[in-house]
Amino acid sequence: MQIPTISPTHDAALAQALSDAINNKTKPLGSLGRLESLAAQLGLIQRSTAVRIDQPAILVFAGDHGVVAEGVSAFPQDVTWQMVENFLADGAAINVFARQNGCALHVVDAGVNHAFGPRPGLLDRKVANGTRNVAREAAMTPQECATALEHGMALVRDLPGNVVGFGEMGIGNTTAAAAIMHKLTGLPLSRCVGAGTGLSAEGVQRKEQVIGAAVSLHEGAKDPLAVLATFGGFEIAMMTGAMLKAAELRKVLLIDGFIVTSALLVAARLQPAILDYCVFSHCSGEHGHALLLEQLGASPLLDLGLRLGEGTGSALALPLLHAAANFLNQMATFASAQVSERSA
Amino acid sequence: MQIPTISPTHDAALAQALSDAINNKTKPLGSLGRLESLAAQLGLIQRSTAVRIDQPAILVFAGDHGVVAEGVSAFPQDVTWQMVENFLADGAAINVFARQNGCALHVVDAGVNHAFGPRPGLLDRKVANGTRNVAREAAMTPQECATALEHGMALVRDLPGNVVGFGEMGIGNTTAAAAIMHKLTGLPLSRCVGAGTGLSAEGVQRKEQVIGAAVSLHEGAKDPLAVLATFGGFEIAMMTGAMLKAAELRKVLLIDGFIVTSALLVAARLQPAILDYCVFSHCSGEHGHALLLEQLGASPLLDLGLRLGEGTGSALALPLLHAAANFLNQMATFASAQVSERSA
Repeated sequence: MQIPTISPTHDAALAQALSDAINNKTKPLGSLGRLESLAAQLGLIQRSTAVRIDQPAILVFAGDHGVVAEGVSAFPQDVTWQMVENFLADGAAINVFARQNGCALHVVDAGVNHAFGPRPGLLDRKVANGTRNVAREAAMTPQECATALEHGMALVRDLPGNVVGFGEMGIGNTTAAAAIMHKLTGLPLSRCVGAGTGLSAEGVQRKEQVIGAAVSLHEGAKDPLAVLATFGGFEIAMMTGAMLKAAELRKVLLIDGFIVTSALLVAARLQPAILDYCVFSHCSGEHGHALLLEQLGASPLLDLGLRLGEGTGSALALPLLHAAANFLNQMATFASAQVSERSA
Repeated sequence: MQIPTISPTHDAALAQALSDAINNKTKPLGSLGRLESLAAQLGLIQRSTAVRIDQPAILVFAGDHGVVAEGVSAFPQDVTWQMVENFLADGAAINVFARQNGCALHVVDAGVNHAFGPRPGLLDRKVANGTRNVAREAAMTPQECATALEHGMALVRDLPGNVVGFGEMGIGNTTAAAAIMHKLTGLPLSRCVGAGTGLSAEGVQRKEQVIGAAVSLHEGAKDPLAVLATFGGFEIAMMTGAMLKAAELRKVLLIDGFIVTSALLVAARLQPAILDYCVFSHCSGEHGHALLLEQLGASPLLDLGLRLGEGTGSALALPLLHAAANFLNQMATFASAQVSERSA
């Protein structure tokens, strides 16, 4: 397996051209705030001052986690496959928001513990029926992890469009994400572990104990891919692969909440320049996400207390990407509109 | 002139029905965060659990300010009418964002110091060619203020749809807004005055001195309508009237930045229940706005450092209103999708 090589987007001349284009628009300097830096970022990714948002798509990766046997989630494991069915039936939040915002939605079985059979709309990339229980053994073998990464890369290679949003579904996956965050940032576990789908304070404490014991059991896992294989889920590893390929292809990566960001953390430890391609859609309500974003130097667009996953934050932030592209392409300049520039 | 009477939206039975509807959707409890409270608010305004966003429209009110003679703005007064021309030519940021998000846009001449003549797309409600210079005399007469309020009410009475967004354009109007905020909240002037379109620190200091002197000159102005007439702009007064009528008609009010919020402050001092009808689109980068929102108990949806006005924040927040309505109307329930409920 070959990890893609990702180049920084830095280009001083283009950055200046973008800045000039933005500043000549009929508005006070800097007055479109975060949309201005977003427009500049999109321009650098696309190597153009004429930014476009072309056929955006959200990939929702679903997988199960052996660690749920330790009682780390408020919901039973069956909810993973049931929610995949809900995605296929157009009934979940991500269906609603993707449809509203004109975004294609692709559902991927990365490793759900359920036999769906061939189903229209479901991309079968199942590595196995869920990971192993990390409290007892590594969640995946290195080969399974490589397979997940490769599937992720191939999925993005086949995708049209220049914006890829990421989402996930997997009962137990905030446990995997918290373990990855702890291992790759060195931050105390208590800063990484949250309530997930809605654990009580007692439940969160138990979850932290389970992760702490697993971290001790696997203390040899240190490099990003070893951490991913040991603690990750198939959906997390497949996202990591998909992200690396998307950045290599100079697509815009729309990052969702805590679990998606944990997959990006692995990717960023392998190829730091990937962060140039990332738009952070929101800061979620899951404990740990704000700190994880800070570790990545990220400025999220939205802060709505969302903690649903599925890519819902990615879908909700998409209109802001359009807004950034549209103001750059469509607004008049001071010269074209014959508006006076500042006098003081 | 009759100020509309606005009823609170409170309805315990409906609030419970909305809460039940939201909690039965296939998602962890509370996991759509701010969108959940927004959906509940929309339901209470519309007296229904089947919320709809119908023909949203943004009204952009433009007016000039005599106080610009005191050097309180970074841009010359001509920019007000030039930007109105830009709105009519579809070249401004608000044109771009309203079009993108499927929102009608109406441009109102509330009192611009320019003879436009009859123009397609421009609603001529000009009270006068700009207000008087508040540093020397009251900005408007009580009669002019009443005329502006009445025009605002009439404009909304004639509007189809159930969502009204507010926006404004007027060189000098952050000066008027800061004076209104100071007078009606009692907060120190230094917490109310900001850089507007981009004053230097020195310019801000001068602006604060100008407002301070005007406040001393007009110390008799105390009740909301007297403050509005003395310090306000025609666009601000017309917005106040439009807001009062919109809430009376149980429309959703989409509140933009600092100046729009100052108009709402006047309305809320007259009819406090108007706040039940307000969705605060964003916290702007203009100094004073965050504190003004806090005074009103507001939780803005976006925080993107915007400080452009024109209703741009209102237009950018509209997709989140749609998202709130759509998840409530379109998502499956645990029962309908046969998804297991929480086990822990």
